[in-house]
Amino acid sequence: MNIPGLLRRYLPILDWGARYTGKTFTNDLIVAGIVTVMLIPQSLAYALLAGLPPQVGLYASMAPLVLYAIFGTSRALAVGPVAVASLMTAAAAAKVATQGTPEYLGATIALAAISGLLLLAMGLLRLGFLANFLSHPVISGFITASGIQIAAGQLAPVLGIHAEGESFVDLLKSMVPNLGHINPYTAAIGFASLAFLFWVRRGLTPLLRRFGLGERAADILAKVGPVVAIAVTTAAVWGFGLTEHGVKIVGTVPKGLPSLSLPPFEVGLWTKLLVPALLISIVGYVESISVALTLAAKRRQRVDPDQELIALGMSNVGAAVSGGFPVTGGFARSVVNFEAGAETPAAGAFTAIGIALATLFLTPLLFFLPNATLAATIIVAVLSLVNLGALKHTWHYSRADGAAMAATILLTLLEGVEAGLLAGVGLSIFLHLYHTSKPHVAVVGQLPGTMNFRNVARHTVVTDPEILSLRVDASLYFPNARFIEDYINRTVAANPAVRHVILECPAVNTIDASALESLEAINHRLKDGGITLHLSEVKGPVMDRLKRSHLLEELTGKVHLTQYDAVSSINPDLARRALETPRDGRPAPATSEAVHP
Amino acid sequence: MNIPGLLRRYLPILDWGARYTGKTFTNDLIVAGIVTVMLIPQSLAYALLAGLPPQVGLYASMAPLVLYAIFGTSRALAVGPVAVASLMTAAAAAKVATQGTPEYLGATIALAAISGLLLLAMGLLRLGFLANFLSHPVISGFITASGIQIAAGQLAPVLGIHAEGESFVDLLKSMVPNLGHINPYTAAIGFASLAFLFWVRRGLTPLLRRFGLGERAADILAKVGPVVAIAVTTAAVWGFGLTEHGVKIVGTVPKGLPSLSLPPFEVGLWTKLLVPALLISIVGYVESISVALTLAAKRRQRVDPDQELIALGMSNVGAAVSGGFPVTGGFARSVVNFEAGAETPAAGAFTAIGIALATLFLTPLLFFLPNATLAATIIVAVLSLVNLGALKHTWHYSRADGAAMAATILLTLLEGVEAGLLAGVGLSIFLHLYHTSKPHVAVVGQLPGTMNFRNVARHTVVTDPEILSLRVDASLYFPNARFIEDYINRTVAANPAVRHVILECPAVNTIDASALESLEAINHRLKDGGITLHLSEVKGPVMDRLKRSHLLEELTGKVHLTQYDAVSSINPDLARRALETPRDGRPAPATSEAVHP
Repeated sequence: MNIPGLLRRYLPILDWGARYTGKTFTNDLIVAGIVTVMLIPQSLAYALLAGLPPQVGLYASMAPLVLYAIFGTSRALAVGPVAVASLMTAAAAAKVATQGTPEYLGATIALAAISGLLLLAMGLLRLGFLANFLSHPVISGFITASGIQIAAGQLAPVLGIHAEGESFVDLLKSMVPNLGHINPYTAAIGFASLAFLFWVRRGLTPLLRRFGLGERAADILAKVGPVVAIAVTTAAVWGFGLTEHGVKIVGTVPKGLPSLSLPPFEVGLWTKLLVPALLISIVGYVESISVALTLAAKRRQRVDPDQELIALGMSNVGAAVSGGFPVTGGFARSVVNFEAGAETPAAGAFTAIGIALATLFLTPLLFFLPNATLAATIIVAVLSLVNLGALKHTWHYSRADGAAMAATILLTLLEGVEAGLLAGVGLSIFLHLYHTSKPHVAVVGQLPGTMNFRNVARHTVVTDPEILSLRVDASLYFPNARFIEDYINRTVAANPAVRHVILECPAVNTIDASALESLEAINHRLKDGGITLHLSEVKGPVMDRLKRSHLLEELTGKVHLTQYDAVSSINPDLARRALETPRDGRPAPATSEAVHP
Repeated sequence: MNIPGLLRRYLPILDWGARYTGKTFTNDLIVAGIVTVMLIPQSLAYALLAGLPPQVGLYASMAPLVLYAIFGTSRALAVGPVAVASLMTAAAAAKVATQGTPEYLGATIALAAISGLLLLAMGLLRLGFLANFLSHPVISGFITASGIQIAAGQLAPVLGIHAEGESFVDLLKSMVPNLGHINPYTAAIGFASLAFLFWVRRGLTPLLRRFGLGERAADILAKVGPVVAIAVTTAAVWGFGLTEHGVKIVGTVPKGLPSLSLPPFEVGLWTKLLVPALLISIVGYVESISVALTLAAKRRQRVDPDQELIALGMSNVGAAVSGGFPVTGGFARSVVNFEAGAETPAAGAFTAIGIALATLFLTPLLFFLPNATLAATIIVAVLSLVNLGALKHTWHYSRADGAAMAATILLTLLEGVEAGLLAGVGLSIFLHLYHTSKPHVAVVGQLPGTMNFRNVARHTVVTDPEILSLRVDASLYFPNARFIEDYINRTVAANPAVRHVILECPAVNTIDASALESLEAINHRLKDGGITLHLSEVKGPVMDRLKRSHLLEELTGKVHLTQYDAVSSINPDLARRALETPRDGRPAPATSEAVHP
C-alpha cells in the first residue's frame, strides 16, 4: 500500500473530513452540547469509582475524544471513563499503591498507557481475534457481577459510611460493622437522589411524551436527570450548611486543563500491571465494538474492528499523557450521541471542547456537590448492567456456556474482577479445546437407490463387513489427530472382519502436520494388520498439500473422487446393487440428513 | 457401572490374567530375560543422565514395571527410565536443589510422585485430550533438540571433562574452556565404546544375518551390544588399573532392594515442581501411547488411552514410593519386548524380578564400570532421536507447523527444555485459535440446472442482487462469533442493494451462546437496516437447541429446509429459471466441489 493509502486506512478522519459541511458542523455542535451535559457528572462519578480525584474524570474526557475523532471508524461512539473499566482500574491500582497517593494516580495513568499500547499493537498486528476468546457468557457474567459489586460499593457513600474491599464479599464484610455510623443527612441526600434518578429513568420519558415531546427528545432529556440531581443537592448542601453535619462533598476541583506529561516508566510497575491492563483493554474493546457495530448497522455504516483497536489504543495513550485513566466507548453516552443525531466523529471532538470549557469555568460550582449524589448516579447507571436472568437463559440453552458464566459471576463476586475474568476465559478456552478434540465421526453406508452415504446409526444403509467407511465431521489437526488414530484403532480392533478402511473427507478443510503424521501412522498400522486405507472426497487445497507429503506414495489404498467410487473400486457388485435398490419411500436424503442428522 | 465392571475396567490384569497359561508363562519368562539384560545398562545410564546415583535407575525399573503389568492395556510396552524424561528430570531438579544432595534425590522422587498423580487424575477425569495439545511438530522438535542436548552433555564424560548447564548453549559454554583437560584414557574408552556401539547398530545385524540368524533374532542380539561394551571396558579398567589414570568409574552401587518410603511432601517444593512434572507427564505419555498404539496395531490389539494414563500414573507413583524417578514407556525396549514375543504384560513383571535379582547379586560387578561407557551408550541411543530433516519436511508441508517446530527446537537449545516445550505448545495453541477465529465463509449462488448452491468465486452461478446467500464452513461458536458478525456487517454495507440475507448452515455442527447472541445481534441490526435474515439447512440438534432460545421468534425471515427453498420463497421465478437452465457441460457439481472447492 502506498503512503496516501496507508494514511486513509489509519486516519478515517481524512475520509469524512473531506466531505464535512457547515450543516454537519451545526448538527455536530448541538449533539456535543447534549453529550457534554451528560458526560460531566459521569466523568466525576467514575473518577471517584476508580479511587481518583474528580478532575481526573474530566481530564479523561478530553484528549481521548479528540483522538477517537481522528482515528475512529464509528460515527456515533462516545469514549470516556466507564463504570466497569473504572472498577477494574481501581482493583488493579490498589494492588500496587494506596488510594490517594501520587503512586496510585501514577498506576492508573500507567494502566491507561499500557492498555493503549496493547490495543495499538493488537490493531497494527491484526490481533483483534484475541477479543473473541472473551465469550459472550463470560463478558455478560462479568458485567453483571461488576455491576453488583459497583452498586454494593457505592452504597457506602450513599449512607455516608466507610467500606473497602477488592471483591463484593470483602466489601460487604467491611460495610456491616459500620452500619451503626450511618450519617442521616448523607443518607437522605443519597436516597432522595436514588429515588429521583430511578423515577427519571422509568417515569420521566412517558411524562414528557404526554406533554407532547417526541420519543427521541424525551429520551435525551431524561438523560439530563443526573445534572438536575447534582444541581439540587449541591444547592441543598450549600444552602443548609450540611457539611457541618458530616455530609462529604467533592470540595476543591482544580481549575484548568491537564498538563501533558509522560506516564511513569518503571519495569516493575508495568510488569505488575500488564495482565490487568490487558483485561481492561479487552473488556473495554469488546463493549465498545459491540456498541459501535449496533449503532452503525442502524444506518448501514461500516465499522472496522482492527481500526477500532487503533482508535481506542490512541484514546488511551491520549488519556495517559493528559493525566487520565483507562477509557473506552460507553453504551449510554454513545446511544445519546447517536439519537441526538451525531453525523461524524467531530461531535466527539466538540464534546471534548465542552468538557474543557467546563473544567476551565465550572469547577467552582462543584465545590458543594455531595459524594452521595455521585454515588447514586453510579448505582442507577450500573444496575441496568445487572442481568441475572441471562444466567438462567444461558444455562437453559447450553450447559457449557452456563457453567462458564456462573464461574465468572461467582469468582468475580468472591475473588475480584481479575480472578473472575481469567477463570471465565480459561474455562471457555478449556471447554472449547475439549470439544474440539472430540469431533463427530460417523460410520457411513450407502443409501439404497443413491450414490450417497449416510450415518449407519441414523439411516437404513447398505454396508459391507469388510469395508469400514468413516466420515469425520471436522478438519484434521493436532487437537483431534490422536482421537482419530484411537478411533480407528478401536473400531478396527472391534471389527475383525474389516479389510478396508475408507475415510470420507468432505468436511475436512485442512490436514495439519500432526494429522498427517497420524494418517501415516494409521496407514502403517493398518498395513501391519493387513488392511488398506483409502480416502475419498478430499478437497482441492487439502489434496494439493498432501501431494507435498509422502502419504500418497505410502498409502495402501487410493484417493477416490467420491465415496461411491471408493466402495465401487473394492466391491463393485455391492455398490451397484445398492444403487439399483428402490428407496422404500424414505424422504430425500439431503433433506433428511439436514433435518435429522 | 457395578463393582466387577469397574474392576475390569481399571484392572486389565483381570482380563488377560484369567486366560494365562503355562506356555504363555514360559514365553514371557524368556522375553523378560532378554529385556532385563538390555535394561540394566540403560537404567544405570539414565540415572546418571538425571544426575542421580546409578542404583536409582535400577530402583525405577522394578515397582513401575509390576504396576504397569497390573494396570496397563498394552501387551508389549516396557516402562522405565528414558532419555528425554531423565533430561527433563535433571533440568527440573537442578532448579530446586544441587546435584548429589539428598534434596536433589528428594526432588526427583517428588517429580515422579507429582507426575504420577497428574497422570492418574487425567486418566480418571478422562483428560487425556490435554496431551493432544502437544502437536506432532512440537513433540518431534522437542525430542530432536533434547537428543542434541543430551548427546552434547554426555560428550563431557566421554572426554573425561566437566560440563554443566541447563541448555545446549550453556553446556557448550562450560565445556569449551575444559577441552585442555581431556583425559586420554577416558577418551580412549569413550570413543572405543562409541565406535563399537555404532558398529553394533549399523553393521552387526547384517553380519549376524549372514551367519544365518533370523532378522528378528539378529535385531534382538544387536540390542545386547551395550552389555558387551560394559563388560569389556569394565574388565579393561580393572585389569589395567585405569582408575589410577583418572578414569572415572561407577564405584560402589549399594546392594539390595529399595526401601519403600513416602516422597517428601512440601507445598513449596511441589508448587515449584508442578509445571515441570506436568510437562514430564505429558511428554512421557505422548511417547508411550504412540509406541503402544503402533505395537498393538501390528497384532490388532486394543490400547485404551485413558487406562494408559492410569497405568503410567500408577507406575510413577510406584517409582516415587520406591526411591526412583519419573518413568514412561520406552521405544527401543518396547520394540525388543514385542519382537522377542512378549504375549502379556506379565513379561514386564518378570523383567522387574530380573532387575531385582541384578540389584541383589550383580552390583559388585559394576564397581569398575567406567562412566564414559555409560555416556557412550546414551549418545548412541539419543542420536537416533535427532531428526533435523523433519523440520524441513514440516516447513514444506505447512508453514505454521514448521514455525512451531523451529520455535521449539531453538528455544529448547537456547533456554532449556521447559522454555522450549512451553513456547511450542503456546505457539501451536495460539495459531490454532487464530485459524479457528477466521473460518471460511463463501458467498453462494445457484448452480444452473440444479438445486445446489456453490461459491460464486469458483462457479458460474445464478444470484439475485437483493439476496446475499452465505455458507459458513464451520460451527458457530465464540472464537468466530464476532468474525461472522463483522463479515455480515461488512458485506451488507458494501452491497446496498441487499434486502435478504440467507445463512446456509450445512457445516454448522453447533451454535453456542456467544454465536446465538451474535445471530440475535445480526438479526436485530439487519432489521434496523430493513433486511430480513433467513437460515437454511440447519441440522437437527442445532435446531432443537435454537428452539430453546428467542432467536426463532425474533427472526425477521424463516428457517428453510434447503437453500433452494429459501431462495424460492423470496424469488420463486429466479430459482425456477435457474433450475431449468442447462448446465453447459460442466462436471457434476458434487465432484467438482469436492475436487476444486
